[in-house]
Amino acid sequence: MPIALADADAPAPLPPTRAAVSARTIRVGLLGLGHVGQAVARLAPDAGRLAERGLRVRIVGALVRNVDQRRRCVRPPRLTSNPAAFLRGHYDVVVEALGTIEPARAIVARLLGRGVPVVTANKALVAAHGADLARLATRRGTSFRYEASALAGVPFLGALAARPLVADVRQFSAVVNGTSNFILSTLETTRCAFDDALAEAQALGLTESDPSRDLDGHDAADKLQLLASVFGWGTASPAADDVRGIRGLTAADLHVARHLGARIKPIVHGRRTGRGFEAFVGPAVVAAEHQLAALHGTLTGIQLTGRFIPDLFFSGPGAGPDVTAATILDDVVETMTTVPAAAGPRRPPLPTVPVISPATRWFIRADFPGITPDADAVRAACAAHNLTVTHVTDAIDRSRWLCTAPAPAAQVTQALAALHATHRIQARSLRAL
Amino acid sequence: MPIALADADAPAPLPPTRAAVSARTIRVGLLGLGHVGQAVARLAPDAGRLAERGLRVRIVGALVRNVDQRRRCVRPPRLTSNPAAFLRGHYDVVVEALGTIEPARAIVARLLGRGVPVVTANKALVAAHGADLARLATRRGTSFRYEASALAGVPFLGALAARPLVADVRQFSAVVNGTSNFILSTLETTRCAFDDALAEAQALGLTESDPSRDLDGHDAADKLQLLASVFGWGTASPAADDVRGIRGLTAADLHVARHLGARIKPIVHGRRTGRGFEAFVGPAVVAAEHQLAALHGTLTGIQLTGRFIPDLFFSGPGAGPDVTAATILDDVVETMTTVPAAAGPRRPPLPTVPVISPATRWFIRADFPGITPDADAVRAACAAHNLTVTHVTDAIDRSRWLCTAPAPAAQVTQALAALHATHRIQARSLRAL
Repeated sequence: MPIALADADAPAPLPPTRAAVSARTIRVGLLGLGHVGQAVARLAPDAGRLAERGLRVRIVGALVRNVDQRRRCVRPPRLTSNPAAFLRGHYDVVVEALGTIEPARAIVARLLGRGVPVVTANKALVAAHGADLARLATRRGTSFRYEASALAGVPFLGALAARPLVADVRQFSAVVNGTSNFILSTLETTRCAFDDALAEAQALGLTESDPSRDLDGHDAADKLQLLASVFGWGTASPAADDVRGIRGLTAADLHVARHLGARIKPIVHGRRTGRGFEAFVGPAVVAAEHQLAALHGTLTGIQLTGRFIPDLFFSGPGAGPDVTAATILDDVVETMTTVPAAAGPRRPPLPTVPVISPATRWFIRADFPGITPDADAVRAACAAHNLTVTHVTDAIDRSRWLCTAPAPAAQVTQALAALHATHRIQARSLRAL
Repeated sequence: MPIALADADAPAPLPPTRAAVSARTIRVGLLGLGHVGQAVARLAPDAGRLAERGLRVRIVGALVRNVDQRRRCVRPPRLTSNPAAFLRGHYDVVVEALGTIEPARAIVARLLGRGVPVVTANKALVAAHGADLARLATRRGTSFRYEASALAGVPFLGALAARPLVADVRQFSAVVNGTSNFILSTLETTRCAFDDALAEAQALGLTESDPSRDLDGHDAADKLQLLASVFGWGTASPAADDVRGIRGLTAADLHVARHLGARIKPIVHGRRTGRGFEAFVGPAVVAAEHQLAALHGTLTGIQLTGRFIPDLFFSGPGAGPDVTAATILDDVVETMTTVPAAAGPRRPPLPTVPVISPATRWFIRADFPGITPDADAVRAACAAHNLTVTHVTDAIDRSRWLCTAPAPAAQVTQALAALHATHRIQARSLRAL
């Protein structure tokens, strides 16, 4: 880890930062100058809307791993790879865009502890430590904002965090990973191979250098945890069997789904229950009429069913450095133009709760090497392994699609493993939303 | 006007209201105890989420026209029909639910002038005076919130008002009147008569006693003005010919639209131009794939195209006292838990700008008394009156549907008046979104 906090780093007392607002210049420190950090630095002087409101955002310092790397933005005055040197700067707001949990957590906690407001788009950080950091910010009379961390371009988290009645959410379904949605949309529209769609996403700067967090559902699982925390459900992660990614899906799968009057979307779903909540992350078959089915490309969205407000829906762009940077700058402005009340709402620590694998219907693409068995044989084989098949399609490209009765993930996984052992059936299972 | 401010009303100085937050009880004064006011009074003690955050909302006073009227809520301690007596109460927040512009404007201005924060769902008030009242609130270091005034249950206005980059909107299309959408949805699903659908809306408490503000587009026009103000476009209203309501539409019209692969929705549309903006209010033919086409019943929604964030969409319930009351209480909580910074963003007064009638395609239902003329005759008759018809349907129930080339409202109105005079053609025109 090239960036670490030296123990000897004596935090120099910062001058009161709110005073700077009267000068209408907001001094921003940037943690990280990767894709997102550079986009923030490029957008800040360009955002004419800020000037209309009499505001100016100036990037006064940045902490990076390598000061000599070439970047697509103006070099900030105080550019350093030394966290202690960065922390000696005077900032009205610090934007955290490091992307990993450490050292981001340690530096953000240090800043909030001194009363410096922090804005981040780092979902892994917010998922793992967001509740603690928000409480620390409240204690120190400052703020911790993370609007871009769930749906990059869609402002809704801040509203839900500040508004207890609309945040009394009973159930939600969402497309939170714009990169996965882009890849599935590209597969569907161009009928290309998975790797080609991935390469296109990478060329557009939609993925990180290691795309596995997007493709294997880990990014979406972080956002599930973050949402469950904002809704006050508790802290928990679904079991590994309920965090699935989009790898292995083909253009043919997407077209079969369309033929069935549905779409395949990368879904995160949660439902509050008596003791904890049900949740899953993974590609799912969604009816064509569902609002999530209409989200193409990098669009992301969330449908919420609440106690007081039923049937809310928010959608918009969910990936890309420029959109993320715009949301971050709006967080910076909101930070500087509203102050948390001294006695803000109490936020009790969230309990750790059990996460249950929900029983949903499943669609299973089953390949039978060499043969095309009849529907009754498939049904009987599944029934022998405790899986009720309600519908079997005609053979499509030597595969059949099976639709099951509601079952949790483990039951389907076990049944498919047994069917592979006994009948050499290769299967890919997708939940139905 | 039974409620009026006596000139002799000497405003008693209120004690500092922020201090009350530490006691965690929020003292609310209610202006009006109609459907919405009663719903606020019923919901306040029931909202368990407030208690979880250590907050309690207590309705300590209400100003009404008639103190003896029976109401479906607990009687507030200080219930009065005398504005001066109401203003002598001590409130942390006042909720304005009078529904008309005066006396609401005068009382709200008085309260904000004293530093008392105000929450309202009164779109007519916000459309006509919102920008002035918001500036007054900023000057007095207090806040004026109106989240429920556009889409009753959908929190998005507060975010856009506080976030300048996402509020840099170039164009929007919205369904803002939940009552009109409910009536059109009911016509479509039950094939009933317009008056029966209206009666059902009234029975569900979705309309005011005089439903004409909903049915004739005036409520939607207020919301258009309000949105143009939040987006910083300026203050203006579209010409009368571009504010249309849903009266006269039939179940048959909705089914013809469906047959054409579209829906008819009560639309508000605006697009910023070089000097002002284009806008219209009225029922419009919307492609079935459009996100607004999926909004049924009382659902409302808005699609926004911005400079920094393209393609945002927000939707949720747009009518009903309980949903409105939940949003109002969330505004109350947000008011008490965030304080505007002393030097908040400057909001220059909005210019008055010209509103242009946009040139869109139109769908025209034309009835030819007694005859069914051929398509060429219809086309020629329209062309003679400066209206280019691009498509004519076969006769449906003795009507034909014409699709036109893009034209502003006045051109269509003039052409249809001329066709009525020359050919006795009865026509109903709808814009295409």
